[in-house]
Amino acid sequence: MTEKGLADVIAAQTAISDIDGARGRLWYAGYDIHDLAQYSTFEETVFLLHQGRLPNRQELEDLTERLVAERDLDRFLGELMPTFGEVTSPMSMLRTGISASSAYDPDGWDQSAEANERKAVRLVARFPTLIAAYHRLRTGEEPVEPNPKLPHAANFLWMLSAEEPDEEAARAFDVCLVLHADHTMNASTFTARVVASTLSDMHSAITAAIAALKGPLHGGANEAVMKMLEEIGEVDRVEEVIRDRLGRKEKIPGFGHRVYRKVEDPRATHLRRLSRELGDRAGDTRWYDLSERIEKVLMEERGLYPNVDFYAASVYRYLGIPTDLMTCVFAASRVVGWSAHVREQLADNRLIRPESEYVGPRDQRYLPIEERT
Amino acid sequence: MTEKGLADVIAAQTAISDIDGARGRLWYAGYDIHDLAQYSTFEETVFLLHQGRLPNRQELEDLTERLVAERDLDRFLGELMPTFGEVTSPMSMLRTGISASSAYDPDGWDQSAEANERKAVRLVARFPTLIAAYHRLRTGEEPVEPNPKLPHAANFLWMLSAEEPDEEAARAFDVCLVLHADHTMNASTFTARVVASTLSDMHSAITAAIAALKGPLHGGANEAVMKMLEEIGEVDRVEEVIRDRLGRKEKIPGFGHRVYRKVEDPRATHLRRLSRELGDRAGDTRWYDLSERIEKVLMEERGLYPNVDFYAASVYRYLGIPTDLMTCVFAASRVVGWSAHVREQLADNRLIRPESEYVGPRDQRYLPIEERT
Repeated sequence: MTEKGLADVIAAQTAISDIDGARGRLWYAGYDIHDLAQYSTFEETVFLLHQGRLPNRQELEDLTERLVAERDLDRFLGELMPTFGEVTSPMSMLRTGISASSAYDPDGWDQSAEANERKAVRLVARFPTLIAAYHRLRTGEEPVEPNPKLPHAANFLWMLSAEEPDEEAARAFDVCLVLHADHTMNASTFTARVVASTLSDMHSAITAAIAALKGPLHGGANEAVMKMLEEIGEVDRVEEVIRDRLGRKEKIPGFGHRVYRKVEDPRATHLRRLSRELGDRAGDTRWYDLSERIEKVLMEERGLYPNVDFYAASVYRYLGIPTDLMTCVFAASRVVGWSAHVREQLADNRLIRPESEYVGPRDQRYLPIEERT
Repeated sequence: MTEKGLADVIAAQTAISDIDGARGRLWYAGYDIHDLAQYSTFEETVFLLHQGRLPNRQELEDLTERLVAERDLDRFLGELMPTFGEVTSPMSMLRTGISASSAYDPDGWDQSAEANERKAVRLVARFPTLIAAYHRLRTGEEPVEPNPKLPHAANFLWMLSAEEPDEEAARAFDVCLVLHADHTMNASTFTARVVASTLSDMHSAITAAIAALKGPLHGGANEAVMKMLEEIGEVDRVEEVIRDRLGRKEKIPGFGHRVYRKVEDPRATHLRRLSRELGDRAGDTRWYDLSERIEKVLMEERGLYPNVDFYAASVYRYLGIPTDLMTCVFAASRVVGWSAHVREQLADNRLIRPESEYVGPRDQRYLPIEERT
């Protein structure tokens, strides 16, 4: 039987994260996502997903130091960046930039488990620098040097805008990065594992994962949500526009999930709260209000719950992240999970090579070209 | 149950190619690979895999004309190329170059079926130019302009060496490109389909496929075979070296295949013949003799048959292709199948997202960092 979409096929064992789709639960290495969203930080989450346990203070300090030390772009990428600005899209830039950076990794073609751990930390550290430098250059501004005194999330906002975020914005963004860091066997993580299973290298696997995340059925959805919010524009218009779209059987971005079917995605709970808090604080609740109304209509009309992408859009908007960078920001968090899954795949590898079922013509006779019509 | 490696899972239906692993048969769209190796050409095979049928004369002329017209590199890539030469590996260059070229595709972000057909032909046309330009630049020579009078295979050899191949070499290489063009649901083709299933773009899917092909358990095997031939060096040493490696339980590259288990890979039959013919013609049968002896020892010792990668190595060597470009040459042929599979996936898409089985710790309690040991 053909398992189209592989929806019920278990492709791998993992100790990185777990979902209970029926009850709306998500754990990283056994830790409830609600605890992590409340108490943890992005840096600590990196340690947790990469090592399978929470760090003690010394371990957290060591990792934080490494992440800070690895933020600078390679000279090559710095020189390459300006050529990207004119025509490419942010996710294509990220895919190309990370692919190009493989040649400049200090561990080179070393594929030992130790080298891959270092490459993983380096990639996590550099995604924000690459994304921010690209954004600054395309808007005609100088890239902002990483600030070693700022944590990962705050430094990312700093490099994007050249303004140091206040504590609330920094904390909200940190929680976003925690929430997006892993989600079991999604399409991009699976892509990374398939590539790793050929014993290709870490950068190949991460480049391929970026390629998969780019799709609107995957990470591209947060941008689609923001565009929808912008198009609707006014809370009064929500009912009309959404009912109209549903009538034309259009999909509404940010709703429905293959795993969380009849419950709320636990990440959405936190993102909804952050959207409300950031809106209140800014004295501009428009994006939150629009989102909340859309959620209500979708629940009434289709019984659908918002997924992780839905409230991420308005949260990122309040944090000043341009719409077309939202999927890149997702990638900057998910690279933690991708790199953890690559290392897990390599620790007990078997080539991932499914079968296909042939449904085309059979036993065709090769005719000379003159005899073909 | 976890289907590690997805070995017996049918991930998709396809009308592009079919394998009978038990009987050692391979068909492209219903045409036996032996007929295609004997009578067809690379250009005709492109049409067959992309359209599902053989072209008539006018259709073949039209496609050939398009492939010739699309050979030139984008200005951007031409300028980018010199920066790659110093440090990157050929497959990383190809992955980065194809990723970067997405921004310069004349169809831009158009993802219609028609645009994707044009992107597919363009990608097939440009792989050789990109690979050859990279090779010329890294060896301190000027890139060679494509020769519009030469067919695809002959032009590839011309751009690599600045020498026009004779008819026999051109035909042998053309057969190689026919033989490598598709092979059902291998790891790189599967990667391309997973990426396409998120509705990401053609260049993303092909970039990810290159990332997967790079691995030594997949396309990287032909380079490993050539390195082994070079290391062994003399036919007299074959028995000793191979038995020694087998004794240390090392894998011998180019042998064994998940699909062809107890029969010969039908592509190997043609590549063995080409290796012998090219060796005879060159008056230097060393690489063929080495290969043949290795094959004999593996059959005696393990009952293993050579796969497509094994004789491809010596054939490419006789054709003057540097060892570290062999996987790139494989990619330049397989991009035909990849792009056909992407279009097939998109024609009836469902997101490919398998499940994972969680095997890590459960119900971990979040302790404040002071309380962790």
